[in-house]
Amino acid sequence: MSSSGTAPAYRRLSVHERRSQLLGHALGLFANRPPEDVSLDDVAVSAGVSRPLVYRYFPGGKQQLYEAALRSAADQLEQCFAEPPTGPLTTRLARALDRYLAFVDEHDAGFMALLQGGSVVETSRTNAIVDEVRRDAAEQILSHLEAEQGSQGHGSPRLRLAVRTWISAVEAASLIWLDEGKQPPLPELRDWLVDHFVAVLTATAAGDPQAAAVTRRALALEEPDGAVTQLVRRVLPVVADSGHLL
Amino acid sequence: MSSSGTAPAYRRLSVHERRSQLLGHALGLFANRPPEDVSLDDVAVSAGVSRPLVYRYFPGGKQQLYEAALRSAADQLEQCFAEPPTGPLTTRLARALDRYLAFVDEHDAGFMALLQGGSVVETSRTNAIVDEVRRDAAEQILSHLEAEQGSQGHGSPRLRLAVRTWISAVEAASLIWLDEGKQPPLPELRDWLVDHFVAVLTATAAGDPQAAAVTRRALALEEPDGAVTQLVRRVLPVVADSGHLL
Repeated sequence: MSSSGTAPAYRRLSVHERRSQLLGHALGLFANRPPEDVSLDDVAVSAGVSRPLVYRYFPGGKQQLYEAALRSAADQLEQCFAEPPTGPLTTRLARALDRYLAFVDEHDAGFMALLQGGSVVETSRTNAIVDEVRRDAAEQILSHLEAEQGSQGHGSPRLRLAVRTWISAVEAASLIWLDEGKQPPLPELRDWLVDHFVAVLTATAAGDPQAAAVTRRALALEEPDGAVTQLVRRVLPVVADSGHLL
Repeated sequence: MSSSGTAPAYRRLSVHERRSQLLGHALGLFANRPPEDVSLDDVAVSAGVSRPLVYRYFPGGKQQLYEAALRSAADQLEQCFAEPPTGPLTTRLARALDRYLAFVDEHDAGFMALLQGGSVVETSRTNAIVDEVRRDAAEQILSHLEAEQGSQGHGSPRLRLAVRTWISAVEAASLIWLDEGKQPPLPELRDWLVDHFVAVLTATAAGDPQAAAVTRRALALEEPDGAVTQLVRRVLPVVADSGHLL
């Protein structure tokens, strides 16, 4: 790999541009190798710059490079969740998931390394960055659900638990998807994750008044023939023979 | 803490008994402290035995102790999932969850340390032990669902994805539960996790023939007025106003 596109490797970049360029190359390298196997020299070769230049930007060495790359990945992931608060919630969720899953697809092994931890350079600081992404994603969803602000953030404890466990499920599904050679195709995975969310939210609504209020409001925003209608139509034949339960 | 119950500290134990005793004390210590802060000396004090004795059992030091404790916790967790294949699936799942959550409750911070990784003594070997517990739990569930045996284990890829993400959701819920001062009460958490499973399985059945077949069979085993009936009854008022979606 050499530096991107039309810019010659030694064009004068601003400090900010240079740092972004180096982190982009580092993330590219993390996509194919565990963080502990990526050296500052590798980044220099990849970016087509001198080794001293890379060392100047990351005097803390491998650990600093890894944390900065993680920070940069976290910022990109947080961008994925930004979505205007209009239209059916399943459409908003599908758009956010499309961006998130594209990130997973692009960064591949780097994403696994970043999220799974288990790397020799893992620290409580890197864990904190990953947890911040999860918290941010949960807050975004709870704010789209217009959950009431409580002392612990948006939503009742049960509703927050539902959203946070769904986020873990998305993470786990992403890692499994990478592990299984990127099957099923992304649009199918995305639709399943949206159905998964609708199902968990509805099951949570069954036992929690705030989740129930939020679910009612969310369902009212859905369009006829939208994701929820499709889901219900496909579920009905599965439960058709279960009249004995009602 | 001293050695358990009526047995005097230096009663002659078999090698196996002594090892189990020391690991029990180690797990007790991990419940209150991160693994890297638990020394072999601490285990000796806790068990009321000599330091050389502990070093004889764990000549590899802290790392060996941690791995052995993790192995022992993994074996205990795998026991939690063993359940006879009779009766409604929600009842079997509830019983397995009761045992699993009791383990989480008892081992507390030790459970978090074991599962969250992020410890300085973490290695690919300790990750492999944790992953084995997850895989074992997934296989147990898929075998209770009587999912067909395929090339990759029981069940279609989509069904396996559903079960594995639900297991991640259970893990995440357990960690959040510990983090939030063990709220809600365990029986409520367990019931919610069962509802969560029913919801995810049903949503998955909507898009996968094998998941649909498995769900139909599972629903046929449910009892009138059982967990599924209760869930449906509580969901109906939430979706009552969503006629526009059908």
